[in-house]
Amino acid sequence: MNYAEESLKKHYEWKGKIEVTPRVQVKTREDLSLAYTPGVATPCLEIQKDEAKSYELTRRHNTVAVITDGTAVLGLGDIGPVAGMPVMEGKALLFKAFADVDAIPICLKTKDVDELVRTIYLMSGSFGGINLEDISAPRCFEVERRLKELCDIPVFHDDQHGTAIVLGAALLNALKVVDKRIDEVRVVINGAGSAGTAIAEFLLNLGVKNMIVCDRAGTLFVGKEGMNEAQSALAAKTNTQKLDGTLADAMRGADVFIGVSAPNVVSEQMVASMNKGSIVFPMANPTPEIDPDLAKKAGAAIVGTGRSDHKNQINNVLAFPGIFRGALDARATAITEDMKLAAAYGIASLISDEERSADYIIPGAFDERVAKAVAKAVYDSAVKTGIARI
Amino acid sequence: MNYAEESLKKHYEWKGKIEVTPRVQVKTREDLSLAYTPGVATPCLEIQKDEAKSYELTRRHNTVAVITDGTAVLGLGDIGPVAGMPVMEGKALLFKAFADVDAIPICLKTKDVDELVRTIYLMSGSFGGINLEDISAPRCFEVERRLKELCDIPVFHDDQHGTAIVLGAALLNALKVVDKRIDEVRVVINGAGSAGTAIAEFLLNLGVKNMIVCDRAGTLFVGKEGMNEAQSALAAKTNTQKLDGTLADAMRGADVFIGVSAPNVVSEQMVASMNKGSIVFPMANPTPEIDPDLAKKAGAAIVGTGRSDHKNQINNVLAFPGIFRGALDARATAITEDMKLAAAYGIASLISDEERSADYIIPGAFDERVAKAVAKAVYDSAVKTGIARI
Repeated sequence: MNYAEESLKKHYEWKGKIEVTPRVQVKTREDLSLAYTPGVATPCLEIQKDEAKSYELTRRHNTVAVITDGTAVLGLGDIGPVAGMPVMEGKALLFKAFADVDAIPICLKTKDVDELVRTIYLMSGSFGGINLEDISAPRCFEVERRLKELCDIPVFHDDQHGTAIVLGAALLNALKVVDKRIDEVRVVINGAGSAGTAIAEFLLNLGVKNMIVCDRAGTLFVGKEGMNEAQSALAAKTNTQKLDGTLADAMRGADVFIGVSAPNVVSEQMVASMNKGSIVFPMANPTPEIDPDLAKKAGAAIVGTGRSDHKNQINNVLAFPGIFRGALDARATAITEDMKLAAAYGIASLISDEERSADYIIPGAFDERVAKAVAKAVYDSAVKTGIARI
Repeated sequence: MNYAEESLKKHYEWKGKIEVTPRVQVKTREDLSLAYTPGVATPCLEIQKDEAKSYELTRRHNTVAVITDGTAVLGLGDIGPVAGMPVMEGKALLFKAFADVDAIPICLKTKDVDELVRTIYLMSGSFGGINLEDISAPRCFEVERRLKELCDIPVFHDDQHGTAIVLGAALLNALKVVDKRIDEVRVVINGAGSAGTAIAEFLLNLGVKNMIVCDRAGTLFVGKEGMNEAQSALAAKTNTQKLDGTLADAMRGADVFIGVSAPNVVSEQMVASMNKGSIVFPMANPTPEIDPDLAKKAGAAIVGTGRSDHKNQINNVLAFPGIFRGALDARATAITEDMKLAAAYGIASLISDEERSADYIIPGAFDERVAKAVAKAVYDSAVKTGIARI
């Protein structure tokens, strides 16, 4: 199927992928007096007395805003906020379909970090959580960091953390298949944008000790010129031998390759130069860093991509619906590192020792156990770490 | 029924009066590839090329934001944005139930006019229209005026214009019943907040020539101290004889009384002092300026209130759903004075000469013809005046 053409046709037919529907009947004067004036004054006053009641008397407990500025939409780049809306609506659709979360897509006509932060903060009282989406790096780091400080509800940039969590789950299982320890492998990440940076941070938290991150100009290391703040921070925690080289240099002898960069930047030779039992995750979408079949041919033991037409799809739909479901159910004030780690272990654990294989390291997008397992792991973590409000 | 208690109980049961639901099925990989990646890139790029396509490829064409800062919620005053949410959800519920409009409730944590304007403008690309709600006067005038200048979608402060339109419709029919001409009657409005100001402006546009507006300190007139900008503008257009007096002074000999003020500020004597065939609309809610039965006893020919338990309910649910339905269908850039006048005539016209009586000057809230008639009138006006974009 030509998805590009067919999707456009479908979007014209659908005229919007979500809608707002009543949960309450309004057929009589009495209905109106209860759902609206004069009756509605009482729940308003209850919330005025105790704002926490907004989670019981309105839909806030189940509502997440999906917010973008349209600067990094899919692989399309800065196409503008309004043009990003089909993705935001799609995301809202998946939130409901996969985890019964009511998600409201909002696109903002500014790229200014201060304005984004202030605008999102000002509306944050309307929602139980905020899913930031498709905001370009490095602005996305500051937007998220500042909003997390300001807001008393979870703020989560899915392009960073969703991808990191699902990749982390895949890596946990892949390492079991090739029988390597996470604290012994050398991991190379190509791409130091929002996803690459978040993956690197997350894998360090997951236990990776030996990591090199590359961008277009080769390996990141302390003292390299032209790095942004997030990249400098990353360089300080990785590449301890200060290898100043190309991606090919970094990959030589590595155990794990993770690509969140550009099509076809990895050759068969580069894969062949990796350590035995290599794990290769070329996730550039829709065209990976190396064709998965070529990677296998070149000697990769396990390959995973972002594509649905290959084995081991690293799809962040496995993470974000359950993460927000769990966070909302716990009425958590944030989505913490512990909750993210719990989510990754939760996803990985769904594949039993018997089932696990080079072609099955991660559940499929439509595995109904996933959102439930993630929600439970996230909820339990929130309760355990004391950030739940229930 | 004790609406206060029962409504609170119901709100705890409902756990939110609206939700976000899918219009598209996501059960297979193919569904996912069409509604989300990779297919969704195509509609995004179409909108990037031509932003008007956002009305065809997303839900924008049917979506209105209901936005408050929580400063004038019902008659409760400044209870804060989060506490206003039950009203906003109720409004969203009515939008869908009465006119199939998808309405998204948003409460903003600021009272600063500049910030409100900027924040709402920045999110305006997400919606087909903006319904401002429960923002206190005189801030509401500036917020609306500036947003109308900035936005290319309709911006409508319902507390002002919704009430004015429905009251206008009721007045048109009431004048027919008592056989008086709109350009000959003397109208007294008590209350110079958002609703009172908007009603006064609207009735002038509807043809009233002789009008006196009062606030707590009595009649407004040119040169009076302590008036805000909107009140000064109003004084310049009304009270041509510069009557400096009390509400009782203003009402003596008047044909029409309109109250959007406070409970029980009008006495039987004041009603009795009005002209023969007097029309009395004490709309303070839930307790009117004078009890409708007392007003009748004191000699009013026609009485209408905001209450559902009396005849002639002036309920703005008769206006806002159809107004936005018509504006969205026309993809109008604004809701103009002409569209508002058309809406009022549209509502009034639903009552035939035969049906019209002192007890039936306005259709009931559940008269299904109303939203359709209003939508058509508003749509036709938008097309006729050249502000439709279809």
